[in-house]
Amino acid sequence: MQTLTVELADRSYPINIGAGLLRQESLLQAAVLARDILLVSNTTVAPLYADAVRQSLGDRRIIDVILPDGEQHKSLATAGRVFDVLIANRFGRDALVLALGGGVVGDLAGFVAACYQRGIDYVQVPTTLLAQVDSSVGGKTAVNHPGGKNLIGAFHQPREVFADTDVLATLPDSELSAGLAEIIKYGLLADRSFFEWLEANMPALRRRDPQALAHAIYRSCQIKAQIVERDEREQGERALLNLGHTFGHAIEAATGYVEWLHGEAVGVGLLLAASMSQRLGALSAADVRRVAALLERAGLRTSAPQIGAATAADYMRIDKKVQGGRVRLVLLTHLGEAYITGDYADAALRSTLQEYFGA
Amino acid sequence: MQTLTVELADRSYPINIGAGLLRQESLLQAAVLARDILLVSNTTVAPLYADAVRQSLGDRRIIDVILPDGEQHKSLATAGRVFDVLIANRFGRDALVLALGGGVVGDLAGFVAACYQRGIDYVQVPTTLLAQVDSSVGGKTAVNHPGGKNLIGAFHQPREVFADTDVLATLPDSELSAGLAEIIKYGLLADRSFFEWLEANMPALRRRDPQALAHAIYRSCQIKAQIVERDEREQGERALLNLGHTFGHAIEAATGYVEWLHGEAVGVGLLLAASMSQRLGALSAADVRRVAALLERAGLRTSAPQIGAATAADYMRIDKKVQGGRVRLVLLTHLGEAYITGDYADAALRSTLQEYFGA
Repeated sequence: MQTLTVELADRSYPINIGAGLLRQESLLQAAVLARDILLVSNTTVAPLYADAVRQSLGDRRIIDVILPDGEQHKSLATAGRVFDVLIANRFGRDALVLALGGGVVGDLAGFVAACYQRGIDYVQVPTTLLAQVDSSVGGKTAVNHPGGKNLIGAFHQPREVFADTDVLATLPDSELSAGLAEIIKYGLLADRSFFEWLEANMPALRRRDPQALAHAIYRSCQIKAQIVERDEREQGERALLNLGHTFGHAIEAATGYVEWLHGEAVGVGLLLAASMSQRLGALSAADVRRVAALLERAGLRTSAPQIGAATAADYMRIDKKVQGGRVRLVLLTHLGEAYITGDYADAALRSTLQEYFGA
Repeated sequence: MQTLTVELADRSYPINIGAGLLRQESLLQAAVLARDILLVSNTTVAPLYADAVRQSLGDRRIIDVILPDGEQHKSLATAGRVFDVLIANRFGRDALVLALGGGVVGDLAGFVAACYQRGIDYVQVPTTLLAQVDSSVGGKTAVNHPGGKNLIGAFHQPREVFADTDVLATLPDSELSAGLAEIIKYGLLADRSFFEWLEANMPALRRRDPQALAHAIYRSCQIKAQIVERDEREQGERALLNLGHTFGHAIEAATGYVEWLHGEAVGVGLLLAASMSQRLGALSAADVRRVAALLERAGLRTSAPQIGAATAADYMRIDKKVQGGRVRLVLLTHLGEAYITGDYADAALRSTLQEYFGA
């Protein structure tokens, strides 16, 4: 097991990464001191891992909330039902929320923990690769609104994160690939040598080699943690983590958040960011081909739905990254370094959108 | 105009107190830089002051959300409707929420600002005495749940507060008295000479003398600010501000939050805290009589509803102040100093509850 600490003064917390964490009974017991625990999971994950977690926690009062699986349940209404359970069981400020699941469970349970009695502790046990490298790190919690994703939320850091690579064994291939998209993102935005390591080790990652996965998760969390430590509340630099996301959100929104996994959309978004960066003279055509090739080898798509450039541009404007009426983008200076800007040639954006989304 | 700064590092903000603030057009204009403003108010306050605020803000995009008046609308469902308005108008992270009203409007609008896109700015224009001395200071935002008050919320400091004593002219007498209960609380918990000043100046406050009101508001906000500065998230000392509240919450809860104003219930709660402190040997009978006399002269009740001690004790346990199964209380060492404890003689609590709530 490797442990990485996210350094945020009194909100610092450890991320534990490795194989078999949930089977080590003493691990969760030592980390979780609360007597009252709300275990939030979903109908897919709970049958697989809830018993192991319960056993690992030992003798506590554990109340389950098992949500239906799916992004559409990450809503204020679902959060309301979780509050109901906390209150019906008279959970106090010293209770703890334990999120066992992917990003939907983690974001929603974290949001509930952020708001219940103005903030109680929570622990993340992410069960998807994407949640392990992204949503469980950095304290962004949220629910969706019909008008847009993650529009209602809070910054609330977990007490501890347990990323057990064993749970990835039951992950569908498409979800493994979706997680790999976020991992590729970290290489692209911050670490060229990690990008090259991914090029060399993609086969090992696809066959779920525990050591390769643990390294990829560790390095991804480390890159994210370093950025979050410098800019917890996304006043500036943290927006780098949105590389590929503004393009990706347009794909998700245009397809109603059901056809495309978040990570799949981010994957294509990375390619659009690279392609636009090439148009702006920063990347070479060979660089863009390397990005596309790595995405393909990760089992990801490299073409966008043909919704038309105008529609895509419109969806990008609904995203949270609009400032003073202008969409801010994360672009690349080269493979391994990104920057945030609202100051770019509109023609470059337009032709990028036309190439990928159609005229 | 007097200005007091709540010192909370990058979350510091000024509270402006005085007569005619809303008529000074340049004041709000200078404080509010956002172009997009959501003006949250209620059906009682908006007809009186919304035009003045709009005029004072000058040329912006101002969208109104006028809520029905009443504590029962301080709910997650109402917050949901305010989110809908923000999103329907495509308000971005640089938009600002302006709360114009009493505690219900301020707490709800503040909670919405805390969660919208994980936190946008808000400004408080409190229009009740209670909101001016209490809910607009310190960043506690929340909505109620059928299971208890303020159970869903966030800590989110406003950018600026404007407490205009002129708006108190239209306040019903009962609401003026309710605000005076919180003001008496500050004297009792932190400043004996302020308590004595209140004894001397209660007639001026009751006839709404602007200078007396401005002084009482300033000193109350100052006491609250000093405590909040040392303990923003209520890890310890801030709980002193709950003096009278745990007893008061039992009254409000037992009477369905409609018969008693919050401040009225707190007023009787102060008397119970004093009375229990006498039973524990800290206060004299004369001290308790002084508290009762000041409450009476403030136009407040000094007797509780006859719900029975057992029922009252049960409602106290639902309050947020329970820790490890034991209700923590704020009690007095003498007039002008309070302390927090879970370590008290149960008999003293029981006999206090029996005296005020009946056997």
